[in-house]
Amino acid sequence: MLRPMNRQFRLAARPQGLPKRDDWCYVEDPAGEPGDGEVLVETLYLSLDPAMRGWMNEAKSYIAPVAIGAVMRAGGVGRVVASRDPAFEPGQEVRGTLGVQTHPVVPGSALTRLDTTIAPLPRFLGTLGMPGMTAYFGLLDVGRPVPGDTVVVSAAAGAVGSVVGQIAKIVGCRVVGIAGGPEKCRFLIDDLGFDAAIDYKLGDVARELKGLCPDGIDVYFDNVGGEILDDALRLLARNARVVICGAISQYNRTTPVVGPANYLSLLVNRASMQGMIVFDYADRYGEAQAQLAEWTAAGRLRSREDIVAGFHRFPDALLMLFSGQNVGKLVLRVEGG
Amino acid sequence: MLRPMNRQFRLAARPQGLPKRDDWCYVEDPAGEPGDGEVLVETLYLSLDPAMRGWMNEAKSYIAPVAIGAVMRAGGVGRVVASRDPAFEPGQEVRGTLGVQTHPVVPGSALTRLDTTIAPLPRFLGTLGMPGMTAYFGLLDVGRPVPGDTVVVSAAAGAVGSVVGQIAKIVGCRVVGIAGGPEKCRFLIDDLGFDAAIDYKLGDVARELKGLCPDGIDVYFDNVGGEILDDALRLLARNARVVICGAISQYNRTTPVVGPANYLSLLVNRASMQGMIVFDYADRYGEAQAQLAEWTAAGRLRSREDIVAGFHRFPDALLMLFSGQNVGKLVLRVEGG
Repeated sequence: MLRPMNRQFRLAARPQGLPKRDDWCYVEDPAGEPGDGEVLVETLYLSLDPAMRGWMNEAKSYIAPVAIGAVMRAGGVGRVVASRDPAFEPGQEVRGTLGVQTHPVVPGSALTRLDTTIAPLPRFLGTLGMPGMTAYFGLLDVGRPVPGDTVVVSAAAGAVGSVVGQIAKIVGCRVVGIAGGPEKCRFLIDDLGFDAAIDYKLGDVARELKGLCPDGIDVYFDNVGGEILDDALRLLARNARVVICGAISQYNRTTPVVGPANYLSLLVNRASMQGMIVFDYADRYGEAQAQLAEWTAAGRLRSREDIVAGFHRFPDALLMLFSGQNVGKLVLRVEGG
Repeated sequence: MLRPMNRQFRLAARPQGLPKRDDWCYVEDPAGEPGDGEVLVETLYLSLDPAMRGWMNEAKSYIAPVAIGAVMRAGGVGRVVASRDPAFEPGQEVRGTLGVQTHPVVPGSALTRLDTTIAPLPRFLGTLGMPGMTAYFGLLDVGRPVPGDTVVVSAAAGAVGSVVGQIAKIVGCRVVGIAGGPEKCRFLIDDLGFDAAIDYKLGDVARELKGLCPDGIDVYFDNVGGEILDDALRLLARNARVVICGAISQYNRTTPVVGPANYLSLLVNRASMQGMIVFDYADRYGEAQAQLAEWTAAGRLRSREDIVAGFHRFPDALLMLFSGQNVGKLVLRVEGG
């Protein structure tokens, strides 16, 4: 076998604000040889997630920072090239934390085989992957919606938000999505079946929310933080649940995070605000994936992937998350571009 | 019967910042005659609570604002003077929302008879009253401490905080109190059995907390908001519970409330922050009062009341809460002064 080159983006510096091209170091090495229990994978698609920005910081968090000089952490799907794990053989399609590299060697125990008869490969990084499961557990376990609830979700056209809103509809809730721009808002209503959408770029989210949630918000699923979180807090219904899943508006700030000034609405309304990390639900991934696949097969859960082609475009593609350019799950395809 | 004069403090204006003397109107009227089912009470002690500041604002909250011109709302204990409710007779000691007035006429259904053999009368406004029950339900139901947890409480020498810390000790937790000044800190440790106390007036609460909570904070019971809330958030342990009971540092601000910049610690640590209002537990008041009385009788729950004498001193006495002058439950005695 000709030994392929493993193209990699390694972290070169801890970014100040938005990551710059110079915060990465592009490296090519011959791919490693799998040792006992290991698998050589050819990466086909990489997941681009807002959480990756946090992994680049040095601060203590729910997962260790990516070390300077290390291959950037990323989830991905790929094809087995060579295997010394009896559970895998060449040609199989797998998912795992492949990193931003084209030919990783990973322990077989860290890979999952994919049934690509049920959906195209990139979907296993979105609705049928971590974002879908984040939505599933975050909404159902932390948000605990009941039929008739008003559910509001921010970054609603993104990988997590789009699934949150659709599951809320399946549960029998009224769903309002907040997203940037008319295209995303149309997508929410026309394609995903949201009851209403608010274009935050038009300005007055607080007023729009008030009009759309006359009885208050029962579940607010937050992916953005900042002013929109404050707008939602102001409108909480009694016993509301606020799910803190992310805060993309805050990740690239070079000044301190802005806290939610309206947090005392939690007191007035006996509401809760709770953070969640999908990794905590690892022992229930099977349940979530089966349910998400079933809803997908039944046409009740629709998905969109926004695919950028070309491994070398990784640094710029990642930034699309922070400028809100992607609609649906942002994925980097290794080939092309 | 000579008809007594009912001395009253009525709300004259909605305060900007700290309430001023002119925000009140002192009025004397002949006491009313109880109608059918009503009771004329002579107020003996009035409860002074931080929450009263919120009731003076016009904003929507968990309870209607006190109207301009109305007698200020307050809990109190008193003695029945005349009764047209068969459940009450003159001389009995009762508790209810008497208002800041010396001779209210109230429906008997809104009064509770007190067993003053178990504790002195003012204690029924503190440990054996709303503050005690706020601590009981807030800590046990919302904070959900388990033995070995590190519990931190702010305004720890106050009516609620002092009970929170002692119940946490009874449950088997390590308890750190935050209070202002050496006297309060000594009170927490020497009289109430807290494991440690931090004098926030000395400055570096964040550093002190870090030293005292090496494994993080499992339950933070917040009465103050502001920087201290942020300091506690920074140190949350995995799955921590933050109870939002009050935010006394914010009640008199004339500029917007400062939100907790470290709220993303909820995400990193899968923690929750939940508001609570004691009124929601009305159907369990009996349980709480029996337990608080039992702990008091057994010497496991100690109390201190800070009693200001003289009805006319109400406006100034209320301000003691906001300057942190009181140690333990602040009570206004109608007589004297």
